[in-house]
Amino acid sequence: MTGRRNDPQGLRRRILDAAFDRFVARGYAATPLQDLRAESGATGGAFAHHFPTKKALALAVIEDRVAEAVARAWIEPVERAPTAREGVALAFERIAAGLEAQGEVRGCPLNTLALEVAGQDAELSAAAAALFARWRGAIATKLRADLAAGRLRPLDAEAAAAFVVAAYSGAMAQARAAQDPSLLRLCAAETDRWLAAGG
Amino acid sequence: MTGRRNDPQGLRRRILDAAFDRFVARGYAATPLQDLRAESGATGGAFAHHFPTKKALALAVIEDRVAEAVARAWIEPVERAPTAREGVALAFERIAAGLEAQGEVRGCPLNTLALEVAGQDAELSAAAAALFARWRGAIATKLRADLAAGRLRPLDAEAAAAFVVAAYSGAMAQARAAQDPSLLRLCAAETDRWLAAGG
Repeated sequence: MTGRRNDPQGLRRRILDAAFDRFVARGYAATPLQDLRAESGATGGAFAHHFPTKKALALAVIEDRVAEAVARAWIEPVERAPTAREGVALAFERIAAGLEAQGEVRGCPLNTLALEVAGQDAELSAAAAALFARWRGAIATKLRADLAAGRLRPLDAEAAAAFVVAAYSGAMAQARAAQDPSLLRLCAAETDRWLAAGG
Repeated sequence: MTGRRNDPQGLRRRILDAAFDRFVARGYAATPLQDLRAESGATGGAFAHHFPTKKALALAVIEDRVAEAVARAWIEPVERAPTAREGVALAFERIAAGLEAQGEVRGCPLNTLALEVAGQDAELSAAAAALFARWRGAIATKLRADLAAGRLRPLDAEAAAAFVVAAYSGAMAQARAAQDPSLLRLCAAETDRWLAAGG
């Protein structure tokens, strides 16, 4: 315990890791704070020092852990790929391969948390909406670069970006319910065909 | 109360209506049974007679109310339309017009509940997965009829149906987070363009 008391940033990280994991896997309302205290090894006082309320914790989970997950799974591959189409295909491919390796479909962290908190808190919902907007923005920026370089037939980059995010989010919802990653593969192939045709 | 006691099916309906409403708007875990008892005017004993557990209530909500919502919003318009493309466009249009009239985006009942219960109970999740499959099945059946009649370029009807459901579900998730029905309109237009091009 002494080591933990002397490492407040380590404790904050452990709490966020545990909360991200449980909120996405099980749900925000369904996770008792007591479980997160036990899992992170925090005393009540240390926990409350970092996160005075469950809502403060959820906001940090969204703005820190969920934002990181969206950046790693989607924004970075799209930004680094030669074209939007290749970036989108790579993001789908890595996620589908990850689900197949895990043998379990845990679902998209943003989609899962966004839908739950939408009914519970306007500020949490706005934080989730901002991440969806950032994700769409990265895809739209890449699509506009493709358009400027003549690599795509004319399309509305904002609408196409919303459609890619929708196809992925909705595919993950179906895959999670059925515990079947092949639904993600089917939608990845359709998204690719649609982008190949110029959106 | 006498009238209510003499109308067990009416009481069951009121409980299901209240539960559907709260589970979709606020969440399954976040809704105390006590609120549903109060709203439906049920005594504890009468409530427990119809729904001995919260899970039994959630299963009935999914298999009865959510199934009805999917049938009315999607399966019936698609089955009755001349083509899958027209049925899909009509479903999107009615839902978008409804959101604009309400001035509030409550989200897709199936998507919202499916993502939450997936982490909490395998039987509830399987019930949600069965509704997704029925929804995809209705669209795939219509697409196969269009293919047989030469009204569509060759496509994989199962994959295309999963893609339509994904595009809609993911569009509603973004629209709900941002409280902005225009995200649904954008994705409806992209889905229509994709189907017009033959999937």
